[in-house]
Amino acid sequence: MKKGILFIVSGPSGVGKGTVSKALLEGSNGKMVFSVSATTRSPRPGEVHGREYFFVSDDEFNRMIDEGEFIEYMKVFGRNNYGTPRKYVEEQLNMGHDVLLDIDVNGAMKVKENCPEAVAIMLAPPSMKELRRRLETRGTEEQPVIERRLAEAKTELSRMGEYDYVVVNDDLDSAIEKCRMILETSKSTPQYCSDFVDALIAEDF
Amino acid sequence: MKKGILFIVSGPSGVGKGTVSKALLEGSNGKMVFSVSATTRSPRPGEVHGREYFFVSDDEFNRMIDEGEFIEYMKVFGRNNYGTPRKYVEEQLNMGHDVLLDIDVNGAMKVKENCPEAVAIMLAPPSMKELRRRLETRGTEEQPVIERRLAEAKTELSRMGEYDYVVVNDDLDSAIEKCRMILETSKSTPQYCSDFVDALIAEDF
Repeated sequence: MKKGILFIVSGPSGVGKGTVSKALLEGSNGKMVFSVSATTRSPRPGEVHGREYFFVSDDEFNRMIDEGEFIEYMKVFGRNNYGTPRKYVEEQLNMGHDVLLDIDVNGAMKVKENCPEAVAIMLAPPSMKELRRRLETRGTEEQPVIERRLAEAKTELSRMGEYDYVVVNDDLDSAIEKCRMILETSKSTPQYCSDFVDALIAEDF
Repeated sequence: MKKGILFIVSGPSGVGKGTVSKALLEGSNGKMVFSVSATTRSPRPGEVHGREYFFVSDDEFNRMIDEGEFIEYMKVFGRNNYGTPRKYVEEQLNMGHDVLLDIDVNGAMKVKENCPEAVAIMLAPPSMKELRRRLETRGTEEQPVIERRLAEAKTELSRMGEYDYVVVNDDLDSAIEKCRMILETSKSTPQYCSDFVDALIAEDF
């Protein structure tokens, strides 16, 4: 059984990470799963432990931090905390599933530090004006928050060099197709194919 | 004008480099050109200088070596010599064309040394037995040569780690499709997209 690939879809707020990620998952024919995060917040109606989130207490969350069980986590005093448990990701990868992580730029960089074999895509907007339009159309944030997000976007985009790939989310279908191709080609690297080639070299002829 | 990509299709003798390369070129809608080699052999009927080859004298070939004009070359005393002139490749890349180099493993490694930004694909056979079958079916080599090629193939395959990608040429169409995706995703790297992202970061919002 070939291990799966940890696939990071990241980028500034409003760029379309969620939409692209959902489409990738739906198009994967069950070969890809979302990473399931741990959180200290309470489950909402219909949410299932281990499906939407692993719902854990503050104490359990702190224990997981102390024992290095997170690939990345975010802890803000007095707020609900979120983290990506390594165990779930590893289990899925070992089952041959690709694991998709839809995550902000800081989180993505922590994951790359801890899992350098992960493939990280920076989704970029076609222009800052278009990013503004998307954030304003979404209508989930007040204007000052939008201005802050736009300023943050520039800082985030400047970390492009730490990513493996940059995909401009101009036309959604073409961005999704590019992400799919990146996932596919990530399975054609020497690291990924080494077992096969080693067997070839050992084969009698 | 975005520079093109230097794309190396390489692998053991008999693996199908020529067939895959031709298909890539034909499917590129004129965006890709073959690299044109220099050679000291005489033109055959119908061959045009600058199209099939740059036909040069021994003296000119030696001068090109001395002045570092080759990305790679092969010089065997008393034989026709071949080399890849840097000038032609650079001109085409600067015109925005991708340049395809169909080349053996030693040549490919020299190109990677001189042009580290080139994208190198190792075509691998599905099995050594299948590689033997292809060499025997091709019927262009005597049996002892075939045995030598098969032994060389193992040495060549063991250099897999120096390539960017490994594509198994089992089903031809799927191998071609994978090479196409690799070319496409090579244009989504941070290096390739840096101008675009720099412009984003400089944009007013």
